[in-house]
Amino acid sequence: MSLVEQLRQLLGNNAVANDAETLDEHSGGYGYVGSCVPVRSGVALSLARMNRIKDINFEDAVAVVEPGVITADLKRAAREKKLFYPPDPASFEHCTIGGNVATNAGGPRCLKYGVTRNYVVGLEIVLANGEVLRTGGRVHKNKTGFDLIGLFTGSEGMLGVTTEIILKLLPLPPSRSTISASFTTMSEAATTVQKIFALGFLPSSLEIADHFTLEAARQDSGATHVPAGNAHLLVDLDGQEETVDVEMGKVRDLIASRNPTTLEIANNEADCERLWALRRQFSNSLRATGLTKLNEDIVVPRSRLVDLIQFAEALSARSGFPIACFGHAGDGNIHVNIMADRYNREEVVREKVQSALDQLFAQVLAWGGVITGEHGIGLAKKRWWPDATSDVARTLHQAIKRTLDPDDILNPGKFLDEEGPQRSA
Amino acid sequence: MSLVEQLRQLLGNNAVANDAETLDEHSGGYGYVGSCVPVRSGVALSLARMNRIKDINFEDAVAVVEPGVITADLKRAAREKKLFYPPDPASFEHCTIGGNVATNAGGPRCLKYGVTRNYVVGLEIVLANGEVLRTGGRVHKNKTGFDLIGLFTGSEGMLGVTTEIILKLLPLPPSRSTISASFTTMSEAATTVQKIFALGFLPSSLEIADHFTLEAARQDSGATHVPAGNAHLLVDLDGQEETVDVEMGKVRDLIASRNPTTLEIANNEADCERLWALRRQFSNSLRATGLTKLNEDIVVPRSRLVDLIQFAEALSARSGFPIACFGHAGDGNIHVNIMADRYNREEVVREKVQSALDQLFAQVLAWGGVITGEHGIGLAKKRWWPDATSDVARTLHQAIKRTLDPDDILNPGKFLDEEGPQRSA
Repeated sequence: MSLVEQLRQLLGNNAVANDAETLDEHSGGYGYVGSCVPVRSGVALSLARMNRIKDINFEDAVAVVEPGVITADLKRAAREKKLFYPPDPASFEHCTIGGNVATNAGGPRCLKYGVTRNYVVGLEIVLANGEVLRTGGRVHKNKTGFDLIGLFTGSEGMLGVTTEIILKLLPLPPSRSTISASFTTMSEAATTVQKIFALGFLPSSLEIADHFTLEAARQDSGATHVPAGNAHLLVDLDGQEETVDVEMGKVRDLIASRNPTTLEIANNEADCERLWALRRQFSNSLRATGLTKLNEDIVVPRSRLVDLIQFAEALSARSGFPIACFGHAGDGNIHVNIMADRYNREEVVREKVQSALDQLFAQVLAWGGVITGEHGIGLAKKRWWPDATSDVARTLHQAIKRTLDPDDILNPGKFLDEEGPQRSA
Repeated sequence: MSLVEQLRQLLGNNAVANDAETLDEHSGGYGYVGSCVPVRSGVALSLARMNRIKDINFEDAVAVVEPGVITADLKRAAREKKLFYPPDPASFEHCTIGGNVATNAGGPRCLKYGVTRNYVVGLEIVLANGEVLRTGGRVHKNKTGFDLIGLFTGSEGMLGVTTEIILKLLPLPPSRSTISASFTTMSEAATTVQKIFALGFLPSSLEIADHFTLEAARQDSGATHVPAGNAHLLVDLDGQEETVDVEMGKVRDLIASRNPTTLEIANNEADCERLWALRRQFSNSLRATGLTKLNEDIVVPRSRLVDLIQFAEALSARSGFPIACFGHAGDGNIHVNIMADRYNREEVVREKVQSALDQLFAQVLAWGGVITGEHGIGLAKKRWWPDATSDVARTLHQAIKRTLDPDDILNPGKFLDEEGPQRSA
């Protein structure tokens, strides 16, 4: 019996639902908001062994994979066939495509290439009633009915269990360059971001990091690895070799004209990854401070980047918590990390953190931003779900959930559950 | 009272629903499948006067528009601010953004830049119960809850009425070039498409046209405007000026090595549009033959392009109808036009056309393709909706429709309606 068939029978078994057992779709377990953490007694479903890459086809430019495939494995397998799977969540060496679909994962390269949803062209889903839905296919465009693929992608395991995924792939850009530049202030770095866009460029990535983040990296790995300066930009360009050279020259000239503290360029994959090693270690360096790192992936309208940085500095002073900001400046999606000592030991610290987050999210929402750009709501942001959505939107979410999962067996207790830590009603 | 408020009251008025009156969202009226054509007595809703561009902001890189804004007007207004709205459905000088959202419209440039859905970041929707849903915002990334924007985008007016749209915009690529090349056979042209991808290129557009289409253009506008040859490719590249020059040189060399009948290059916007004028007149030239043009926007896995061309030729011979193929070769989305004489006068001709389409769609589905890549199902493809979807998928569509529009007041009688011309059950 196939795994799909076993899942079908498991989910179709009324005894499971009637006993009020619960099912949680477990992927790589690398989500930031606890979407995959079971909160009631029930069945935790691991698809880790459904990890076959069934097909990668250059002519069709698609991959057909099972949900347990590690994202980096897919990226490498595509690259071997001169194809490119762009999404690159920070955990790509450990997370799975199934988890990426469940969370509609992003990453630095989504600035130019878009999020996971933009690459999902087909899904096989086991529904709560045990039926198997197949939707989409090996095609790059499809307008057959409603966008069911979009409905399941990013639904955090609450609407169905993904058992097969068809992904659109792109031609592999043959060349890549990276600029690493630092500045005296975050405002200078953030303003430079806007100047790059004003040239008509869409870099594949455009990342920013603040003083606290850089200082944590210096403490963690030694000052020599981390450029001097209080704010840091990483700019990636990809494409044909000659064109990347020309465009990188223009971006370099622009940055050089803006008084950077340091400026370094890499022109091959290995050197680019060396510059990126700094960026990739930020989360670990922040954890190495010994503080608890509460990573909030808010998004602001891009014009608010400098305002956000200033607000975070004021909030840090007011609350007493260090706040580290880094992330995807290009699309306004900044990881604001509140760094808290004794978070897991003292209730009073947790309350102070919640109060600081209340202030952060209230400001972000007042600017027309959103409280999550990549990580989702899950458990961790459940408290702010009512603030971030209208009554009409929440009612519609509940109606969709009831339609697809009337017995609430799929990932129960998460943000749609009205019990638990919601801040307001 | 605002228009939104009027709509809200109209839709919230139970009398309307209880009298089984019907509402059809009318946008520009340029859809290909009759989605906006009322089929029952009721209210046809025109949003043509909700045509304000409320905001275009460079720093945030967003546009806020009402649904009646003509797509070309938005594209021009964005361009004036050095911003770029990529989707370019053929009717862009006449169709509206609201219609583009309702159909998730595509166009040639979607090869590189994606369809309308990829640009919609916020929606205001009047629901069937009269409530107003606002979802998304002025942000380029958002992971707050389920993908409601995706659910409404492409729902063909059956789930809600769009009253405001926030669109993500890109930095305007400063330069563009076009290659126009013709070949002796469609197979040569289709093979060249794969070779371009193998270089690692993602052109902004990659269009193909067959002998019948070119011949219709010659009859319509004179032989001098139309390159010699039996198959035609248009390749567009965009980006920084120097980089477009370099990349265009590579594509030109590749095409030149493949024995084209003609080869012409344009390096500025006006010359590019002159080459594109040929492509843009194809639909009119085909109509000028005096035959009824039944445009089916099927999508095949890209490896099936040559097979599709050969199948269309065999189907033409078998059925006696000329068949004109042209369209978006790059994403396998070919407009297969069955050209029928006396279609509107003779029932027997309509039956023969339906039989030919039955064969076309059966083959496309057997290859793993889909029956619509851009136009949707609407009325025109309702007959094949059961062939193109599983029982599970259709049941899920019905459940979603009942959840959002329990009284079936929004665009009734279209593909979800079980009455009417469906071929099988």
